[in-house]
Amino acid sequence: MKKKLYLVTGNEHKYREFCAIVPFPIERLALDLPEIQSLDLEEVVRAKAAAAYTAVGKPVLVEDVSFEITAWHGLPGPFIKWFNQTLTPAGIARLMRSEADRSVAAREIIDLYDGTEHRLFYGEVTGRVAEEPRGESGFGFDTIFIPDGQERTYGEMSAEEKNTISHRAVALSKLKNYLKRVEEGEMR
Amino acid sequence: MKKKLYLVTGNEHKYREFCAIVPFPIERLALDLPEIQSLDLEEVVRAKAAAAYTAVGKPVLVEDVSFEITAWHGLPGPFIKWFNQTLTPAGIARLMRSEADRSVAAREIIDLYDGTEHRLFYGEVTGRVAEEPRGESGFGFDTIFIPDGQERTYGEMSAEEKNTISHRAVALSKLKNYLKRVEEGEMR
Repeated sequence: MKKKLYLVTGNEHKYREFCAIVPFPIERLALDLPEIQSLDLEEVVRAKAAAAYTAVGKPVLVEDVSFEITAWHGLPGPFIKWFNQTLTPAGIARLMRSEADRSVAAREIIDLYDGTEHRLFYGEVTGRVAEEPRGESGFGFDTIFIPDGQERTYGEMSAEEKNTISHRAVALSKLKNYLKRVEEGEMR
Repeated sequence: MKKKLYLVTGNEHKYREFCAIVPFPIERLALDLPEIQSLDLEEVVRAKAAAAYTAVGKPVLVEDVSFEITAWHGLPGPFIKWFNQTLTPAGIARLMRSEADRSVAAREIIDLYDGTEHRLFYGEVTGRVAEEPRGESGFGFDTIFIPDGQERTYGEMSAEEKNTISHRAVALSKLKNYLKRVEEGEMR
């Protein structure tokens, strides 16, 4: 029998993407834990996992995302949530108008933490910032992120399509493979 | 006899400004505590004070600053430190080139926390973002901040002059008055 996983996140959209990609039962614990200020995504995720474990008292899954604009020396990075809330994606695109270099990396780190060991799963997709928001799908920066090799933003893709290629999908497929190996080990 | 105050900060410049303004003995504890991600400066400062008290085990002084650009809906706010580190003040001024509204508020909150009660002291100075960095004094955003009623940036002022009018000076003068009242109370 598969053990249930607990994803601690204040973000319903992220929970849906986890469930769509990982074929293991996942329960959402809707705690909005404080995150630490850092430009190092891994540091943010490890601290969040430790806080989630303390709050929940059992092994937890947490994740966080970083949106690293080259022309802005890596900003907003893990602070993307606050840029989305204040400037909005349209405002980010507007501020980027004067930038010749539109390249950006979308990074995801998932941490499966049992109170002792952090198991980290990484996803990264490089791309560019759209000149204005396009599409209605997704959330966060989806409407202004065009992955390399594509002409459309995440926001112009179906959920299925985004969930095949996104930074979160890359990290989740690694988590999925890890969970499969654990399960096979337990079956033997 | 005046009790010693412990200022917990990773920032040597801030310590010097505290000592220059408050005529009470202040010792610096150079811990660089993690700060929480929030656009609410008071929330950041309260959490920092709680973490500092836990680390130090005696009453602590902490402070934090916010740089709230109107055209950016309050960003960078308490994230100013990371903007300074990555974009640099010159980069902030460059991104502001396309903004008609250059107004900004520099806010300071000091928290004197004894493990039970938070005593908060506020300072705010409104002004505008300079078109490019000017001056050599100060630190952080000083070279791009022009207080209302002035033509010069903090960076073009002497330390004495900045320490008479700055957001930090406003908060520190309230702390100073509070400490005087406590001392007078103890003398009676």
